Amino acid sequence: MSQAILIINGPNLNLLGTREPQIYGSTTLADVETAAKQQAADLGVTMHTFQSNHEGAIIDRIHEARGNCQYIIINAGAYTHTSVGVRDALSGVAIPFVEVHITSAQTTASNGLPKAEVPILKDLTIDNITDNVNLINGQCPDPRLKYVLERLTQHLHDFARETRLSHEEWMTGLQFLTKVGQTCTEVRQEFILLSDIFGLSLLVDSIDHPKPPPSTEGTVLGPFHSHEAQPAPNGSLISHDPAGEPCLVLCTLSNTAGTPLAGVKIDIWETDSHGFYDVQYPGRDGPDQRAVMQSDEQGVFWFKAIVPVPYPIPHDGPVGQLLMKLRRHWFRPAHVHFMFEKEGYDHLITALYLRNDPYETSDAVFGVKESLLIDLGTVSAEQAQRYGVPEGSKLISYDFVLVGKAESDGLREANARAAMEKLGLGKMRMWRGLPVPDVD
Amino acid sequence: MSQAILIINGPNLNLLGTREPQIYGSTTLADVETAAKQQAADLGVTMHTFQSNHEGAIIDRIHEARGNCQYIIINAGAYTHTSVGVRDALSGVAIPFVEVHITSAQTTASNGLPKAEVPILKDLTIDNITDNVNLINGQCPDPRLKYVLERLTQHLHDFARETRLSHEEWMTGLQFLTKVGQTCTEVRQEFILLSDIFGLSLLVDSIDHPKPPPSTEGTVLGPFHSHEAQPAPNGSLISHDPAGEPCLVLCTLSNTAGTPLAGVKIDIWETDSHGFYDVQYPGRDGPDQRAVMQSDEQGVFWFKAIVPVPYPIPHDGPVGQLLMKLRRHWFRPAHVHFMFEKEGYDHLITALYLRNDPYETSDAVFGVKESLLIDLGTVSAEQAQRYGVPEGSKLISYDFVLVGKAESDGLREANARAAMEKLGLGKMRMWRGLPVPDVD
Repeated sequence: MSQAILIINGPNLNLLGTREPQIYGSTTLADVETAAKQQAADLGVTMHTFQSNHEGAIIDRIHEARGNCQYIIINAGAYTHTSVGVRDALSGVAIPFVEVHITSAQTTASNGLPKAEVPILKDLTIDNITDNVNLINGQCPDPRLKYVLERLTQHLHDFARETRLSHEEWMTGLQFLTKVGQTCTEVRQEFILLSDIFGLSLLVDSIDHPKPPPSTEGTVLGPFHSHEAQPAPNGSLISHDPAGEPCLVLCTLSNTAGTPLAGVKIDIWETDSHGFYDVQYPGRDGPDQRAVMQSDEQGVFWFKAIVPVPYPIPHDGPVGQLLMKLRRHWFRPAHVHFMFEKEGYDHLITALYLRNDPYETSDAVFGVKESLLIDLGTVSAEQAQRYGVPEGSKLISYDFVLVGKAESDGLREANARAAMEKLGLGKMRMWRGLPVPDVD
Repeated sequence: MSQAILIINGPNLNLLGTREPQIYGSTTLADVETAAKQQAADLGVTMHTFQSNHEGAIIDRIHEARGNCQYIIINAGAYTHTSVGVRDALSGVAIPFVEVHITSAQTTASNGLPKAEVPILKDLTIDNITDNVNLINGQCPDPRLKYVLERLTQHLHDFARETRLSHEEWMTGLQFLTKVGQTCTEVRQEFILLSDIFGLSLLVDSIDHPKPPPSTEGTVLGPFHSHEAQPAPNGSLISHDPAGEPCLVLCTLSNTAGTPLAGVKIDIWETDSHGFYDVQYPGRDGPDQRAVMQSDEQGVFWFKAIVPVPYPIPHDGPVGQLLMKLRRHWFRPAHVHFMFEKEGYDHLITALYLRNDPYETSDAVFGVKESLLIDLGTVSAEQAQRYGVPEGSKLISYDFVLVGKAESDGLREANARAAMEKLGLGKMRMWRGLPVPDVD
């Protein structure tokens, strides 16, 4: 029997010739295998080849080589660095083997950058680390992610430099963020809450969804929107809390030209009379105080709910502890959330707030806007008959106005251009509607 | 039987007269109860009083009132907003009750600020939200936390404004951070790793632990320090990995004046020959490749370990995914971690790196410094005999120098003052060794 050699190629080597050819060349794996087999045949040796992306399959193939292969040549690819199993398999079968790679570790260590552009990441100091981190992150092929991370790194580092952040404070911060992440569940989003109490949520909504008059202003989403709400026809009772004060909600929807908008998807959610959302009750039966509705042909939507109440945001987690340290209260004024979606119109996330709520001007998450304040009304005799609710019961009514997507996109872009100019961040261009540096 | 009234006071009302008297006044709860009892007696009514910080105790007391009290007056304090149980108890016993509060909800809503200083948090915009968030956070009694959060809010908001951060990007970011938090376990700290790959860890170490020559420079802690290391005498074998290449580590410790330092606590950790720390193996028996040692009277410490190997930082989590998106590799050059603690000396967290490692100038966490690079040596015949290791085996030797705490503190403070001046952040003062604004 002639001698036999087994060549094993690990994960992603099947992409050879097509994956990042500037690093790995344009020869395919089939080319390599054919050439190797030809060379082996010329020498009177049998050459077996095998490629797999699966660690277990590579281990199996090594085992199968016992008794029929005299040598193994292996490029375990990424498993080189992590697979104890492949290493043990090679030791186990005791077949002499050679480990090969198609790039030098040094080349890989250049992060794929052309040699001239590889930063020397050594002896980094307070003053030069930011530029170097941005240089190495600058390989990111997505220009937007690259720009966002470049600004993030700059601000993160400036923050540390301006505060002379201590190691202890840094550790406290990381432990706080860890706890925030670990407080999140399927039905609780503590990071949104953290963003809310720092005003970041409102800021992002203001930037991303500019609402030119007369369109309805947006406000914070909050952490309690869920995708569990059931579709409900006009007139539905959406709250089943017997302790809540019944309230008729009667609204219209139009575009900025005043034309009624039919078929708009409307997501509605509020708390029960105790100030809790359905998802805050463990063991609850299903969604309540939530619905997904559609506006009718006249742009009208209406439903029976309860009068909203002020309530504390969840404060038994790290965000609540932080608010306490800051001597801030954790209340939100009474409100009902609304989210509107319609093809051709800018997404509207908003809420209606009851005027004269004790927390009207101190909302823990900064969501209140004058244009979203409403006075609680009273159902008239005519309305009582028409909507099947008691005369004199409570009434919320509001006329929502959606801005067209083209107008909103145009305004967002104009705002972005104006901001870039004002900030003096250098030459910028728009990329998928968002600014990125305009590099030649 | 005369009529009886029960007054119930909830949590923290026992602090009345001592807690934030500017909001709650200086009358104690005992004063109030005595006055109420006196007034009741004058009217021929019996007055019972009860205070508890425990929700359950309040519920019990309400139940006990059945049949012997005709009215309840309750200030449930913070339970007002959260306790369904107290509310149900009051409904259950069906005793007429009055709910009272000693501040108006409006006053509480002012966050405890004197009325003139209460910001009106309404209609916040892209341009004014930062100042308003800082205004409301400005109540924080800790001047350092207040300053750190003021800078954090400014940079966070500037970041969003400069990038025109979209709602989708914001949500992606929060979901990423959530995943980072949820990847953390008792033995894995993904947030430290995230800080590491953004260069923040090295930056904070550089700021907080300035190391004037000739003291040894510090570097990143990394996420794999554990508190499990066992005390080990000089000469201990600290790695039990049979596949590792044995290595004698022979070091001295002195202060900047060259005086040997005895009794320094030294924490040492490295990976095994596969590039994994002990804590990365599920089901491991106990710590390995770790020890806590003490320098001897000559300032010497030595131990038997293995030659360190380059290894990938954990990349099966969100940080690894981010590195991949950024086209960055996840390797660290071969190194051994050291941490030194001694009363009167600045804490030193550092590491020794092998020169000519393929990742010497591209460490994924930016930790390499020229002064911490070492050439792997060879054990001489004399050393072999003295330290009981084979002649010709590998040797790491290094002379560590610790800087005194007073010198380091002075340098840190001088650096902070210089930075504050350069940054033009206004009048600053030092508070517990860290800068805060100097407000009159």
